[in-house]
Amino acid sequence: MTPQPNPQVGAAVKAADRAHVFHSWSAQELIDPLAVAGAEGSYFWDYDGNRYLDFTSGLVYTNIGYQHPKVVAAIQEQAAKMTTFAPAFAVESRSEAARLIAERTPGDLDKIFFTNGGADAVEHALRMARLHTGRPKVLSAYRSYHGGTQQAINVTGDPRRWANDSGSAGVVRFWAPFLYRSRFYAETEEQECARALEHLESTIRFEGPSTIAAIILETVPGTAGIMLPPEGYLAGVRELCDKYGIVFVLDEVMAGFGRTGKWFAADLYDVVPDLMTFAKGVNSGYVPLGGVAISGAIAETFAQRPYPGGLTYSGHPLACAAAVATINAMEEEGIVEQAARTGAEIIEPALRELTERHPSVGEVRGVGMFWALDLVRDKETREPLVPYNAAGADNTPMAAFGAAAKKSGLWPFINMNRTHVVPPLNITEAEAKEGLAALDAALSVADEYTV
Amino acid sequence: MTPQPNPQVGAAVKAADRAHVFHSWSAQELIDPLAVAGAEGSYFWDYDGNRYLDFTSGLVYTNIGYQHPKVVAAIQEQAAKMTTFAPAFAVESRSEAARLIAERTPGDLDKIFFTNGGADAVEHALRMARLHTGRPKVLSAYRSYHGGTQQAINVTGDPRRWANDSGSAGVVRFWAPFLYRSRFYAETEEQECARALEHLESTIRFEGPSTIAAIILETVPGTAGIMLPPEGYLAGVRELCDKYGIVFVLDEVMAGFGRTGKWFAADLYDVVPDLMTFAKGVNSGYVPLGGVAISGAIAETFAQRPYPGGLTYSGHPLACAAAVATINAMEEEGIVEQAARTGAEIIEPALRELTERHPSVGEVRGVGMFWALDLVRDKETREPLVPYNAAGADNTPMAAFGAAAKKSGLWPFINMNRTHVVPPLNITEAEAKEGLAALDAALSVADEYTV
Ligand SMILES: Cc1ncc(COP(=O)(O)O)c(C=O)c1O
Ligand SMILES: Cc1ncc(COP(=O)(O)O)c(C=O)c1O
Repeated sequence: MTPQPNPQVGAAVKAADRAHVFHSWSAQELIDPLAVAGAEGSYFWDYDGNRYLDFTSGLVYTNIGYQHPKVVAAIQEQAAKMTTFAPAFAVESRSEAARLIAERTPGDLDKIFFTNGGADAVEHALRMARLHTGRPKVLSAYRSYHGGTQQAINVTGDPRRWANDSGSAGVVRFWAPFLYRSRFYAETEEQECARALEHLESTIRFEGPSTIAAIILETVPGTAGIMLPPEGYLAGVRELCDKYGIVFVLDEVMAGFGRTGKWFAADLYDVVPDLMTFAKGVNSGYVPLGGVAISGAIAETFAQRPYPGGLTYSGHPLACAAAVATINAMEEEGIVEQAARTGAEIIEPALRELTERHPSVGEVRGVGMFWALDLVRDKETREPLVPYNAAGADNTPMAAFGAAAKKSGLWPFINMNRTHVVPPLNITEAEAKEGLAALDAALSVADEYTV
Repeated sequence: MTPQPNPQVGAAVKAADRAHVFHSWSAQELIDPLAVAGAEGSYFWDYDGNRYLDFTSGLVYTNIGYQHPKVVAAIQEQAAKMTTFAPAFAVESRSEAARLIAERTPGDLDKIFFTNGGADAVEHALRMARLHTGRPKVLSAYRSYHGGTQQAINVTGDPRRWANDSGSAGVVRFWAPFLYRSRFYAETEEQECARALEHLESTIRFEGPSTIAAIILETVPGTAGIMLPPEGYLAGVRELCDKYGIVFVLDEVMAGFGRTGKWFAADLYDVVPDLMTFAKGVNSGYVPLGGVAISGAIAETFAQRPYPGGLTYSGHPLACAAAVATINAMEEEGIVEQAARTGAEIIEPALRELTERHPSVGEVRGVGMFWALDLVRDKETREPLVPYNAAGADNTPMAAFGAAAKKSGLWPFINMNRTHVVPPLNITEAEAKEGLAALDAALSVADEYTV
C-alpha cells in the first residue's frame, strides 16, 4: 500500500491516454488526466509517489473502498469458473445476486432486471413505466442526474443536458424541494414540502394526468447537491402517483447500497416506489453492473407479453459474482451500519463545526456517508461561491479550493459551488479525521473569495 | 471439462432465477431458462450432465470461446491490482486497450471512447454525429439491430423496435441491399448495389441533406441475417456521406474483432467510416465493454468544446485489461486468421453442400465465422419457413428445428426463419464438423415443413 514511484511508466500511461482515450464530459485538449498507479481502501496514488485520500469514492461508487479482498477474491474465483454467459440462461451468480438484491429492496420490488450501469437502468425503467401505463410522458426534477444516454440525459436536470436537449419530447421537468434555495418562497421545511407537493400536483394536472407514465426522482439527489427531501415529501409523491395512476421511479444509482447509512435511501423515508434503479454501490463498480428492481404489478405486465428491451450483458456472471461478494461483505462487516455511525459521530459534527467557522460554507446537508457543503460568497445572501455552471476564470474559487485540498493529500468531490464528502462507507475514523483536517485547510482558501 | 451432474444445485439456481431474474426480450412467464453449470472453449453444459456445442458464441460475442486461460489470468491479475477506477484518470489497462484498438481500427479512427456495451456505444456515436454536424436526423436501415436503449432501439430496423417506437423523431429508415429478398426488383448483385445506392441518395435528397447528421449501418448486418453488402455498396455510401456532409457510422458491435476473418468487417471492403462502434468481441464479453472509435475530424470537434456525454464505468480497468489480453491472445494465436481459414475451408463448403441437399435451405450467406442459412418453405418462391416475426404456433417449424439441434448436442442461433452459424472463431475443425453434422440432422426436421 506504499506507493512506489515509477515516473517512466506513468509517462507512458499518460502518453497513450492522451493519444487514444476520449474522456467523458470533457474538452479533450483542455484536460490533463492524472495517471493513477494504484488504489487500496480509501486511498489511491499516482506514479510520482503522491498518495490521496479519496473523499469521492470514485464517482461515488466505491462504497466498500478500493480492492476489498473478499470481492477481489470472488472476482478471481468467478473468472476461473465462468466469466460470462448469455442473458437468456439461469446462472448461479446471476440468480444469487438477484435474490440478495430483492431481499433488500423495499416492498415488493422482487424482480431484478440487470443492466451494465446507471444510465441504461434509467432507460429501461422509463420504458417499463411507459409500457405499463400506455402513457407517453415522464416528469423529472431540475437538479438531478440520471445518466448519459439520450433518454437518461433528457430526464436529467443539470446543464449536461442542454447540449443534448432535442426539445425534450416526452419529458417535463418540475422543481423538487430544496429549502436553502427555495423556488417556493418557503421559510420552513414544512412549507417547502407542502408547496413542492402543490407545485407537483399542479404540474400533473396541467400536463394531463392521463399523459404521464412516470415521475422519476433521485431519492436523495446526489450530483445535484445531496438535498435530503423534507419529511413527508416522498410519501406525498407516492400519494400523487397512486391518485393519478403514475409509476413512481426512484433512482438509487448513487444513494443506494449503504450510501445513506441504510441499504436504500427509500428506507430512510419508508417509501416504496414501483421501480427502483441501482448501479454503483451494488458491487462498488468492481465490474460494471446496474439494474432495475421491479414491483409485482409491473412484472405482471410483462408476464405474458414480452418486455421489448434487453442487452447482451444483462446479468453478467462476473459482475453478479462481484455483487454477491460485495453485499455479503457489507453484511458481514456491518458496512452499512458503519456508514451511519461514522456519518453521525464523526462526519456530521465536524462538518457542522466547519460550517460555523468558515465564511465560505453556506450550508451543510446530508446523512450517512452522503454530505454536501454548499459554498457561498456571502452567507447572508447565499450567493454561490461560483455562478451556476461556471467555467474558466469564473470558476477560480472552486479551482483554488480543489487545488488546496489536493495539495494536502485530499481528493475532493467538486460540482458547481459545492464539495461533497462522500468517502467509502468503511473509511476508518482516523482516515475521516485526516480528510476533514485537509478539508478545513482547503476551505480557508475558499474563504478568501467570500465578500 | 467433463460436466458433473448436480441437479440439486441446478434446481436452486433455476428457482432463484424464476423468482428474481427479469430476462431481456421476454414474456417472463413464457420462458424456461436453462440453468448452465459451466462452459469451456466451444462447449457449455447444464446441471443434468448435458453438454452443448455452442454455435452461437453466446449472443455472437465469445469470439475466443469460453474461459480462455490467458484472458482469465489477465482478469485475475488486474483484479488483484486495480479492479476499478473513475473515468477522468489515466489508467494503464485503459491506455493500453485504447492503443491496441486504435492500432487495428481502419483509417484515422484513433480516439477511443469506452462504453459498457453496444447500445451505449451507438447512443454516443449518434450524439457525436449530431453535435459534429449540428444536424438532427439519423438514417438507418431496415433489417438491422443497434441495441436496446431508447435511441439505439429507435435506429434499429427489426420488430423489437415497434413497442418502443415513439414515432421515431429524428430517425429515417431506408432499405439496404439484400439480393435474395430484393426490395429493388434486382436480378444481379451489381443491380442490387446500384439501385440500393440510388434509393439511399433519393432518400437523402428528399429528406434534406442539411437535416441529416449520420447514416448508421452494420458493416455486415448480423442479427438481421448476415447479408454481406455487395462490392461497391459501402464505398458508395462513403461517397454519398462525403458529398452531403453526413457522418458515416459503421456499427461493428457484432461484425468486429475477427468475426468476419478480418479485425474489422470494414477491412473486407476497404472502407473507412467516421465513427465505428464496437463491443462483444473486443474482450469476448468476459467483462462488459463497448466503445466508439472516433476519426480525427470528429475528435477535433470536441478538442476545445466539452463532449456532453459520459458514464461512470467508461474505460473500466478490469474490462480494459480483458480487452488487452483478448487482443493479444488473438494476435498470438492467429485467431482472426483461423476464423478466415476455418470459415473458408470447413464451414463454407459444408454449408453450401447442406444448401444443395436440404429443401429447407434457401440461401447460405456469410464469411469467416459469420454465416446464415435462410430457411424457406419453398426454394422456388423463397417463402420463409416461418412468417416475419412469427410467434407461438406460427413458429413451429423453427421451434422443431431448434429442438432437434439441441437434442443432438448443438446449441443453434435462431432468429426468425434463419439459423446462424456463428461459433467461436477458434473452434477446432473437429468441433466444427461435429456441429455441422448435428445441423444436418436438424435441417432434416426443417425439411418436413417445406412444400
Ligand atoms: C442518480 C444517478 N442516476 C444515474 C446515473 C448514471 O449512471 P452511469 O454513469 O453508471 O450510467 C448516475 C451517475 O452518476 C447517478 O448518480
Ligand atoms: C450490431 C449491433 N449493435 C449493437 C448491439 C447492442 O449491443 P448490447 O447488447 O451490448 O447493448 C448489438 C447486439 O447484439 C449488435 O449486434
